[in-house]
Amino acid sequence: MIRYLPILTWGRTYDRSALSNDLMAALIVTIMLIPQSLAYALLAGLPAEAGLYASIVPILLYTVFGTSRALAVGPVAVVSLMTAAALSTIAEQGTMGYAVAALSLAGLSGVMLLAMGLFRLGFIANFLSHPVIAGFITASGIIIAASQLKHIFGIEAEGHSLVELVISLAHHATQTNWVTAIIGIGATGFLFWVRRNMKPMLEHLGLGSGLTSVLVKAGPVAVVIVTTLAVWGLGLEDQGVKVVGAVPQSLPPFTLPSFSPDLLTQLLLPAFLISIIGFVESISVAQTLAAKKRQRIDPDQELIGLGAANIGAALTGGFPVTGGFSRSVVNFDAGAETPAAGAFTAVGLAFAAVTLTPLIYFLPKATLAATIIVAVLSLVDFSILRRSWAYSKADFAAVLTTIIATLVFGVEAGVSAGVVLSIVLHLYASSKPHIAEVGQVPGTEHFRNILRHDVITDPRVVTLRVDESLYFANARYLEDKVQERVAGDPTVRHVILQCSAINEIDLSALESLEAINERLGEMGVTLHLSEVKGPVMDRLMAQHFLTAMTGQVFLSQFQAAKAVAALPDG
Amino acid sequence: MIRYLPILTWGRTYDRSALSNDLMAALIVTIMLIPQSLAYALLAGLPAEAGLYASIVPILLYTVFGTSRALAVGPVAVVSLMTAAALSTIAEQGTMGYAVAALSLAGLSGVMLLAMGLFRLGFIANFLSHPVIAGFITASGIIIAASQLKHIFGIEAEGHSLVELVISLAHHATQTNWVTAIIGIGATGFLFWVRRNMKPMLEHLGLGSGLTSVLVKAGPVAVVIVTTLAVWGLGLEDQGVKVVGAVPQSLPPFTLPSFSPDLLTQLLLPAFLISIIGFVESISVAQTLAAKKRQRIDPDQELIGLGAANIGAALTGGFPVTGGFSRSVVNFDAGAETPAAGAFTAVGLAFAAVTLTPLIYFLPKATLAATIIVAVLSLVDFSILRRSWAYSKADFAAVLTTIIATLVFGVEAGVSAGVVLSIVLHLYASSKPHIAEVGQVPGTEHFRNILRHDVITDPRVVTLRVDESLYFANARYLEDKVQERVAGDPTVRHVILQCSAINEIDLSALESLEAINERLGEMGVTLHLSEVKGPVMDRLMAQHFLTAMTGQVFLSQFQAAKAVAALPDG
Repeated sequence: MIRYLPILTWGRTYDRSALSNDLMAALIVTIMLIPQSLAYALLAGLPAEAGLYASIVPILLYTVFGTSRALAVGPVAVVSLMTAAALSTIAEQGTMGYAVAALSLAGLSGVMLLAMGLFRLGFIANFLSHPVIAGFITASGIIIAASQLKHIFGIEAEGHSLVELVISLAHHATQTNWVTAIIGIGATGFLFWVRRNMKPMLEHLGLGSGLTSVLVKAGPVAVVIVTTLAVWGLGLEDQGVKVVGAVPQSLPPFTLPSFSPDLLTQLLLPAFLISIIGFVESISVAQTLAAKKRQRIDPDQELIGLGAANIGAALTGGFPVTGGFSRSVVNFDAGAETPAAGAFTAVGLAFAAVTLTPLIYFLPKATLAATIIVAVLSLVDFSILRRSWAYSKADFAAVLTTIIATLVFGVEAGVSAGVVLSIVLHLYASSKPHIAEVGQVPGTEHFRNILRHDVITDPRVVTLRVDESLYFANARYLEDKVQERVAGDPTVRHVILQCSAINEIDLSALESLEAINERLGEMGVTLHLSEVKGPVMDRLMAQHFLTAMTGQVFLSQFQAAKAVAALPDG
Repeated sequence: MIRYLPILTWGRTYDRSALSNDLMAALIVTIMLIPQSLAYALLAGLPAEAGLYASIVPILLYTVFGTSRALAVGPVAVVSLMTAAALSTIAEQGTMGYAVAALSLAGLSGVMLLAMGLFRLGFIANFLSHPVIAGFITASGIIIAASQLKHIFGIEAEGHSLVELVISLAHHATQTNWVTAIIGIGATGFLFWVRRNMKPMLEHLGLGSGLTSVLVKAGPVAVVIVTTLAVWGLGLEDQGVKVVGAVPQSLPPFTLPSFSPDLLTQLLLPAFLISIIGFVESISVAQTLAAKKRQRIDPDQELIGLGAANIGAALTGGFPVTGGFSRSVVNFDAGAETPAAGAFTAVGLAFAAVTLTPLIYFLPKATLAATIIVAVLSLVDFSILRRSWAYSKADFAAVLTTIIATLVFGVEAGVSAGVVLSIVLHLYASSKPHIAEVGQVPGTEHFRNILRHDVITDPRVVTLRVDESLYFANARYLEDKVQERVAGDPTVRHVILQCSAINEIDLSALESLEAINERLGEMGVTLHLSEVKGPVMDRLMAQHFLTAMTGQVFLSQFQAAKAVAALPDG
């Protein structure tokens, strides 16, 4: 019971000091979340209020089921982009069908996350390698920024890959609404300035770092207020400036996603990818923040928490959500001590949904686009290309493929291509393991690669060290290598396999060892093993192989070499 | 040049003794191959002569390009079955379209094999694990035997999985032609008797083992002659006994496969699977036989040889071919010394195609079915289930899945399911590596698992040994395990990762180590490494990580423990 309801653990010791800290953090996060949640709803192709709804009940559910004390759940940029991409082939933006499909996507993703949590399948997310994620996030940031340019310039444009977006933008460029463009470019420029220059300036002026940080965070809110007032005061809506418009003044409504089997089938893959990407983003933030306070995150319980949050989003007019990086950091820095801070944030947003919504009628979409662009461009980081190139070409190939596939073919193709390629490259590498022929380092009991060191060898004895576990993909490679080494050299009488790096031998590899033993036997060559690990030995003991083996098993390579040297030929 | 034309190597030293040995082997293999090639053509759904054609030019081409001295190339049971399954959805058996599709399948498979050879992609075949192959061959043998029952009983039946076949056979059982059934059951019974009882009997009568072996091999030929004469003499064709009928008396014709993009697209996956399965079957026979004479097989050149053979089959009225197990063993045992034996076999079969074909008009299909059934039932071996169960549950799961999927859904689904499942299980296992907390065995410099041994530990120091290379799929698992161990235990001041079993660290794992280092740092815990391998250390040296690491790298775990014990807290 307690395992599945972490709230029972921290709730028991909740006190006044935690309450006041949580309230303070909640206030700051709420102010930050209002423009963000509206903007991400727009990015997902949904009406602005969906962003608020997606931030209320989901946060409350995460408060009950989540294990992170600082994670702030809600709409995030990449998941919103993936939502828009997934729904683009299903319905037209702005239709009822689109909104219902978004609910279904959140619901499906929630069920998947919940199932992965209950069946402890969180390891699936591990197949997204760090470089693939880094490449994907960078490429997604570029696509998101490009997708917002239409709002900045007040034109129409469509597409879910960079290529489509650029072509569409170029095509409609002549229709630019210059009033919108002034607001959009001005807001973007101001927000960049706030981010880059205001903080050092304020600190230079002697303001405390706490106050500075709050003022910087309030930047987007200031832009929202100023541009909204400008549109209202100057009647810019008549000049063609697109605004958020009428937003219902209400608490999150109760909604039901569609259960149409056709729709759910179409959403299966996108929901899976959104779940995995969302989980990975969320868990890495959560673990980073938890470590700072020596707290522990339970990944399986996190899946349950995020699953519940997404099911909540599906039932209350939202769309897929996850733990966001920037808002969680703000929450943590602002002093949030328990998930209760999230609950207070939800209350704050609910208050905003009921009271503040009429005030955002004149909020220009260009302003929201500007906040999105400034937020996501901080995600764009090509340094992963340089770093992976320096470290390993396989990692580099996976990053480059992910970035290019995402930009050219869109988010789903991008992340899938990256995952598949990194798995293929990993399997390829392990299918051709490093096999070194070793000899004794003079005066020691050590055996090292004969190509790298001056070592003592015996022409009658070949010692091979395999630097990889043996399994089906590399078993036959070992057969080839042994045959290659021994077939052409008639002086060889003994082959010793040094097994110090072999953590596992599967049945295919066992059969390959049997084949090697038999073929060496046909050539009059004896096979020995040395330094076999305990668990591997346990398995081999239960098999016929050890009795059929022509030679012996030695505890250490040194013993093996000594004993074999003393043996007569053949 | 010599690399791609092995014939230049062995042809240079060809002498009279090799010639006479090769001629003798060719004679025996030719006699064996005539009924076999006709039967496998029938199994593939093609006219009988296609089997002869598929055994002439392909053998000649393999003689030029292959590296095995004993391999006998031609139609084999499993590949013929896969051919029939692949073509079943494309055209009706007996039509021109079906025969042309068979040519395209052979051509496509030939091009794939050739390309894999030239680009050295033979390692792809290694992803077929031994247990998956064993399960697949067993299930295929059952399907092949079931598919021949219609010929034995002279009824109609269709299907490419066991389930379909059994239903279809049951449905048509009442139409059994009893004359056919007597021939079919009689021939099957006789061939089983020859295989099981005749050999010991003849040896008991004092015949030499060479003559015995020839007489046993001649069993199928005897059945062919007797039943053909019976059908001709007794006019059984009028009783409804299906016979091979008119076979053109000619050398292999020149044929062109279809290049229709639609057809080739449909054949892509089957051609790939046929290539891989054929290659694996062929290479394992070739290596086993080569080892007996201390010869070497070059897997990449084998791909080229088999590719050429299949392209040859496509151009001369054949269908997919590969190196067969039983006939290669016969060839080897009969004394074949060089691939020239294959060339002589081809001449023998060409002679048969030109002169003997009228004689097989009255050969009953039931007789050919009997030879197939007896041949393939020796492939059926369920012991792999018992063996894999005893050795590892993952291997067992892969075998069982392969067998069931093959029987229920057919060959393509079966082999695909087996391969995918074994890869998934391998990745799963390596994504949750064995991580042992170790301590010092008293009085030694060895460190062993604290759960299995009485060891000395220091409450301030946690030493973890990871028994697997670190890569993206298990990097986060390590993060979780370290956090789990340390977060709840405030006495811990140092974590040592013993890296003796880590053969590789990819970029994801490096970033996980950085995260572990940073998070431990936040908790006031120092991270050390011990026993890092040379190549892994080389890579780490080039990175920022080692300088950022809070602790040190030690050559041995013993040194690490000693040095860390001497360090002050935090």
